[in-house]
Amino acid sequence: MRLQILGCYAATPRFLSPPSGQVLEAGKHLVLIDCGEGTQMQLRRFKVRFSRIQHIFISHLHGDHFFGLPGLIATFRLLGREKPLHIYGPSGIKEAITLLLKIGDSWTDFPLHFHELSSSESELILEDTTFSVRTLPLDHRIYTNGFLFTLSGGERRLIPEAVEKYGIDKAYYRRIKQGEDVYDSNGALISNALLADPPRPPKSYAYCSDTAFQPALVPYIKGVDVLYHESTFLHPEAALAEQTKHSTAGEAGRIARMAEVGRLVLGHYSTRYKDLEAFRKEALEYFPAVELAEEGAVIQW
Amino acid sequence: MRLQILGCYAATPRFLSPPSGQVLEAGKHLVLIDCGEGTQMQLRRFKVRFSRIQHIFISHLHGDHFFGLPGLIATFRLLGREKPLHIYGPSGIKEAITLLLKIGDSWTDFPLHFHELSSSESELILEDTTFSVRTLPLDHRIYTNGFLFTLSGGERRLIPEAVEKYGIDKAYYRRIKQGEDVYDSNGALISNALLADPPRPPKSYAYCSDTAFQPALVPYIKGVDVLYHESTFLHPEAALAEQTKHSTAGEAGRIARMAEVGRLVLGHYSTRYKDLEAFRKEALEYFPAVELAEEGAVIQW
Repeated sequence: MRLQILGCYAATPRFLSPPSGQVLEAGKHLVLIDCGEGTQMQLRRFKVRFSRIQHIFISHLHGDHFFGLPGLIATFRLLGREKPLHIYGPSGIKEAITLLLKIGDSWTDFPLHFHELSSSESELILEDTTFSVRTLPLDHRIYTNGFLFTLSGGERRLIPEAVEKYGIDKAYYRRIKQGEDVYDSNGALISNALLADPPRPPKSYAYCSDTAFQPALVPYIKGVDVLYHESTFLHPEAALAEQTKHSTAGEAGRIARMAEVGRLVLGHYSTRYKDLEAFRKEALEYFPAVELAEEGAVIQW
Repeated sequence: MRLQILGCYAATPRFLSPPSGQVLEAGKHLVLIDCGEGTQMQLRRFKVRFSRIQHIFISHLHGDHFFGLPGLIATFRLLGREKPLHIYGPSGIKEAITLLLKIGDSWTDFPLHFHELSSSESELILEDTTFSVRTLPLDHRIYTNGFLFTLSGGERRLIPEAVEKYGIDKAYYRRIKQGEDVYDSNGALISNALLADPPRPPKSYAYCSDTAFQPALVPYIKGVDVLYHESTFLHPEAALAEQTKHSTAGEAGRIARMAEVGRLVLGHYSTRYKDLEAFRKEALEYFPAVELAEEGAVIQW
């Protein structure tokens, strides 16, 4: 998986402090997670091949997470897109986006599919052979979901030298990948373990923004490789975090520790703070592997 | 008047090629003209005191002219604005903006007044003692208005040395500014011309984007000090300009010449062009005083 941060600031975007937006590459998928104002400019800036995006996940309907979506769709249209686009987000998103495109007489020529979310339980919302996406119910001022992205290791991996050595007919390759023992050219049964390596280990990414400190989240994100958890505030502003249903960096660190994740990525910083290192420092008090989301940063695993 | 360009590119915004947005300072007014995606970031970038903005004029409902508006309104709210905000734009703008703010439970605490436009005739839409705004019907794919901003010179200007010399009572100052002759302390009638200078000359700015070449516009903008006229394309793309109802730089130059304006400012460039000087060169074939809108550029008169 390869994650690129497009923007990582809260609330009132400024020049060079863009609001939430991330692209995640997982197997053959390139997906967009949240789409604050200016996200399409950031996609251009970081030379993301964004015509590849077929799935967009919107956590909630505060402007800093989706006001860039109508512009991105309009740009796809102007660039002559033909491939379908799937948008997952809270109920209401379809009406809003549809209205904005219609009043500009800018309805898309490509199929635009909205998958509106309203459940307060975690749901499986996308699944193909190796890639799946589940919602993560968050606790914010309005209905909000995080998203858990899982890339399974797929099938067992054929060992080219071994199938050649045993003279296995190509017709059997599909079965070997599925774990079966097969016959060699002499009619002898060959153990699958000799012909194929185990699948790659699955990989996972959890995106949790925006949310108050919410231990109920832990079972859903247990052991994920990378957790992005919002940290709008630092501990001195804990009362403000509670009031606005955001988290402090320390709270993000506690969630990461409880969920025993691989790495914690902080983001969604209030623009009141000048020094982002203070976020890392605060989270490190609870969890040892902390990274800071920064514009353009790439995290690969 | 002082005009600052925030963005001046057409259609698909890129990093450092922001879409339409301008701030105009006229007397005590600071108004925003169009508000493409990212305009609020540009306001921050150029350190505009944007809390002063009380009137926003939207030419038409294509995304590159108004997709930055919901975010700007949300930011005004987050910054605790109390002053009313007036938005002038095509019918439909109220429903769209209202819906976007409502689904995010982000309705404003300050009064938000929409002035929806639907006339195909030029209308006076704002007027106070010295400042007025008229619509300029344009010819685009959807209903579109340009705007004519006029700052009158106001009253005659008292000459402090003269009123002192003639011993004029302060009670007469108001009448002097209105052009009356008044009595001095000895009862002699003093000619107004001795006591006050004429008002400052009026100043004017016409904003015309987006539009096909439209000579019908000329009477409305006759003799304005500064004309901003869109030039999405260059002459080799004239057929495309006609088809999409945009103008070439040469056509903008012809309008400027016919209207005998003071200066022509070009903008709304298609991002297909790398060299903006070609726009100036093309317009100069028709009109001698041509400037290029560029990010952050300030034009004062």
